Amino acid sequence: MPDDLQSEEVHAVAARLADAARAAILPWFRTPALSADSKDAAAFDPVTEADRAAERAMRGILAAERPGDGILGEEYGRSAGTSGLTWVLDPIDGTRGFISGMPTWGVLIALCDATGPRLGVIDQPYIGERFIGGLGRAEVTGPSGTAVLRTRKGRALAEATLFTTFPEIGTEADRTAFERVKARARLTRYGADCYGYALVAAGQVDLVIEAGLHPYDICAPIAVIEAAGGIVTDWEGRPAHGGGRVIAAATPGLHAEALALLGDGQGRVRES
Amino acid sequence: MPDDLQSEEVHAVAARLADAARAAILPWFRTPALSADSKDAAAFDPVTEADRAAERAMRGILAAERPGDGILGEEYGRSAGTSGLTWVLDPIDGTRGFISGMPTWGVLIALCDATGPRLGVIDQPYIGERFIGGLGRAEVTGPSGTAVLRTRKGRALAEATLFTTFPEIGTEADRTAFERVKARARLTRYGADCYGYALVAAGQVDLVIEAGLHPYDICAPIAVIEAAGGIVTDWEGRPAHGGGRVIAAATPGLHAEALALLGDGQGRVRES
Repeated sequence: MPDDLQSEEVHAVAARLADAARAAILPWFRTPALSADSKDAAAFDPVTEADRAAERAMRGILAAERPGDGILGEEYGRSAGTSGLTWVLDPIDGTRGFISGMPTWGVLIALCDATGPRLGVIDQPYIGERFIGGLGRAEVTGPSGTAVLRTRKGRALAEATLFTTFPEIGTEADRTAFERVKARARLTRYGADCYGYALVAAGQVDLVIEAGLHPYDICAPIAVIEAAGGIVTDWEGRPAHGGGRVIAAATPGLHAEALALLGDGQGRVRES
Repeated sequence: MPDDLQSEEVHAVAARLADAARAAILPWFRTPALSADSKDAAAFDPVTEADRAAERAMRGILAAERPGDGILGEEYGRSAGTSGLTWVLDPIDGTRGFISGMPTWGVLIALCDATGPRLGVIDQPYIGERFIGGLGRAEVTGPSGTAVLRTRKGRALAEATLFTTFPEIGTEADRTAFERVKARARLTRYGADCYGYALVAAGQVDLVIEAGLHPYDICAPIAVIEAAGGIVTDWEGRPAHGGGRVIAAATPGLHAEALALLGDGQGRVRES
């Protein structure tokens, strides 16, 4: 990322993107259209409509304020830039949660350079909660005000809370590897979508393990969790911003302990 | 329930109970105490502390305002009354969600007579969301204002969204029966705690199937869902306010279709 990057300006743009996505999506959340008879719904998909409206709104802001930056969005794909920076956008992460009325879907916004994510936002519009990490910040604002994000320390796997989207995702081999970690964890919870990553950053959850991710699913969580002191890699311990199989951990020790069980057999260390 | 019951008075008391529980619990949600090292946490259980503080606060209000009513609470058990009415209280339903920082736990408050629940409140303090059903009301108040609660109509099981706490609960036979329903449903989601029942009432989810429930887990959801037009029974189609194995459905047709798969083989009907 260029050294002359204005962090405050970038944070302000990210906030405007999140605000615009909230305004575009919330009118579609828990609407009669979403709860309509499925025969009507077949002709009109309100989730897709909300997804697209939010990404269009965010792209409009970026075209005006950051014309040199590239964009990678879930709905409208890749737009080249000239600055070396790319905004990675997922307007509604957690579609299944969204169509069920759950408050755990989120808007994911990341700013990446060639090395990976530098700034991330996980926004939950219905609760009015925003998790921000990178470029000097690690904080959540929401119903209880503003708080610092810091991952939880000092827990071994046997004391850890693990979140996942399994059994819905991944191959059979992925699930088997996941089950090895689950068998050692104290508590496993399912179906939290991107909210699970936010809770790792907030020090409430120790591990998230998933598979089959796209870059736009994970770039924002990487920035938020790393800013809060955690670690996110793929199942081989490499950078995860390309997606695929991902593990997010509160501490290096927990990361190593889970990674060994996922099957790479490398880098197992004890947390000091 | 006595014919001279003052519905508005009862609603007002229920609201004060929910307000008091919110105030007692929220200081403990996502606190450092909850995210402390487990060695420290072993000496002090903040969830239990929050649970008890909330139930004490609610019992104090009832002692002052409804001294003739009985109370059944998760933490402090049964207190006899003289009115024929019993307040059934679960200060924190969804402990595993609570200790993970998820916004899907809830305060459950019901008022029952000899026939079962007549009024129910499902309150989510962090979101600031309250689902109320019975004695002339079926409504939710929350971040988007106030809306009428009405279950979703016109969906067969093949189009339905199913929520459950399985695989965490129930016997092996219960799980097998549950899997028969899951195999026919369009979408299954896990771990929503009492929030799943609220979403049935709100017309977002079609079915919740659970097992191993206590009366205080289900009395409030029964009142809220029935006021919204849905049905809650045990797996044999009988009243569910005693707990055990429970099915909540948006419509009679869906209820019958799922009940048949759960294995009772009775009462299968087609929704008109």
